Amino acid sequence: MSSFYVDHIVRFSEIDAAGIVFYPRYIEMISAAVEDWFAGPLEYPFKQMHLDENIGIPTVEMHCRFFAPSRLGDVLTFKIDASKVGRSSVVLDIDITCNGEARFQTKLTFVHAKRHGDDWKSEPLPQALQKRMSEFLTDKT
Amino acid sequence: MSSFYVDHIVRFSEIDAAGIVFYPRYIEMISAAVEDWFAGPLEYPFKQMHLDENIGIPTVEMHCRFFAPSRLGDVLTFKIDASKVGRSSVVLDIDITCNGEARFQTKLTFVHAKRHGDDWKSEPLPQALQKRMSEFLTDKT
Amino acid sequence: MSSFYVDHIVRFSEIDAAGIVFYPRYIEMISAAVEDWFAGPLEYPFKQMHLDENIGIPTVEMHCRFFAPSRLGDVLTFKIDASKVGRSSVVLDIDITCNGEARFQTKLTFVHAKRHGDDWKSEPLPQALQKRMSEFLTDKT
Amino acid sequence: MSSFYVDHIVRFSEIDAAGIVFYPRYIEMISAAVEDWFAGPLEYPFKQMHLDENIGIPTVEMHCRFFAPSRLGDVLTFKIDASKVGRSSVVLDIDITCNGEARFQTKLTFVHAKRHGDDWKSEPLPQALQKRMSEFLTDKT
Repeated sequence: MSSFYVDHIVRFSEIDAAGIVFYPRYIEMISAAVEDWFAGPLEYPFKQMHLDENIGIPTVEMHCRFFAPSRLGDVLTFKIDASKVGRSSVVLDIDITCNGEARFQTKLTFVHAKRHGDDWKSEPLPQALQKRMSEFLTDKT
Repeated sequence: MSSFYVDHIVRFSEIDAAGIVFYPRYIEMISAAVEDWFAGPLEYPFKQMHLDENIGIPTVEMHCRFFAPSRLGDVLTFKIDASKVGRSSVVLDIDITCNGEARFQTKLTFVHAKRHGDDWKSEPLPQALQKRMSEFLTDKT
Repeated sequence: MSSFYVDHIVRFSEIDAAGIVFYPRYIEMISAAVEDWFAGPLEYPFKQMHLDENIGIPTVEMHCRFFAPSRLGDVLTFKIDASKVGRSSVVLDIDITCNGEARFQTKLTFVHAKRHGDDWKSEPLPQALQKRMSEFLTDKT
Repeated sequence: MSSFYVDHIVRFSEIDAAGIVFYPRYIEMISAAVEDWFAGPLEYPFKQMHLDENIGIPTVEMHCRFFAPSRLGDVLTFKIDASKVGRSSVVLDIDITCNGEARFQTKLTFVHAKRHGDDWKSEPLPQALQKRMSEFLTDKT
């Protein structure tokens, strides 16, 4: 079992008037971490997916729990695991820590979908992609 | 029982390369709708809360379900109800529709907290604020 | 001579750790004011322009001067005039005030352009659009 | 003479419906590059500046010229030089390229200022900081 890790340093643009991360910025970070997972080990960069192949991965469900505030300059570690890799839907568990301290966690469900004009239809994951994703399954039994 | 309603027109800055709302922007809209609820019927603008009184309302949990994509120019209606108004924590149910079509929904839990230097401590809701919030309780029994 | 006016109330998401508007957010507001100008008096909503007709208005030059900070809840008035409406390029003068106090100003040049696959080529402004824009010329002689 | 260089890979969150960078996001990148310059060679991280010492560097003028669109995944190189390091104000020249192709450039003037309650007053640059900034002067004569 392996996890995907990516670090992010909290920027000035992400903190609020109280000096802590404004929670919608956390969701942008989540999106960026997933983007890095695709560009990295999944070998399927968003440019190819969205722009060349008219594929998207619309989020259908997201559940976040926030444990402690983050501050300017904090190095946040995003750890991505998959708890489900289905035919066309995927569930990710993303844990965000700072020096081992839990900051927040997100369970994210997205669907692999193809764009037909203005419509989106779920589309089976290509086998190679599904296999690469499965490397990140928490429980491979 | 009453609900708080506020409209938002989807802007160019909020859509992605596929022409639909990028989901982290939805969370910014949620934050803005809550800000409007405070500035409006709760009579407690964020300026007074955050800047004058060192109070914040950090989100501790958020659960979103996305039903259908939204497009540039769509008029989204945010409907806020409270399912719990506790001593210092509040649970909101926010439904987002476009011409009656469900787009997404969010259950949001935040805590009323006071900032002590770099620390945040939950702080009982002032009675007047708690009373005004209770007007939005779904179930007032 | 007429000007286009639109108001914007400074939101929590737009201020920084010092409680004043973070300047990149000002540029988003500029973009939104131009979007409102198109959707309003120019009768050419961005949805139609960008999504239906593959037209864009890429900014080619922008000059901003910032006079005084803006704070959470400030009502900013954006006033748009045109100092040039050319064959395919337009120069706007945008003044931003709060209760009459100058906050910042922007001179913005954009080009009316058509997208050909991955390329953009400047495209003459349709006559009706050009005429509507000319209503906002500061100097109509 | 030395310049400060930092790279940024264009993210999905930064492109618009036409698949190119939305220009307000460029200004966020400018802000981030300046933040990295301070955290790096200037040895004065924004956390220390803004949060610990109540110092800010409000932008007073910004002039941008955009030469060519940038796309998802493009590696943008930000090159920062100083054309003036004054008593309390600094002028930066920032050139942004992708594989040597000019994308845009920004001339940015900011002031080193101290916050007194709700007010900002320009404050002479500390000598050590001024000296480190001067290493980036284009013309040191």
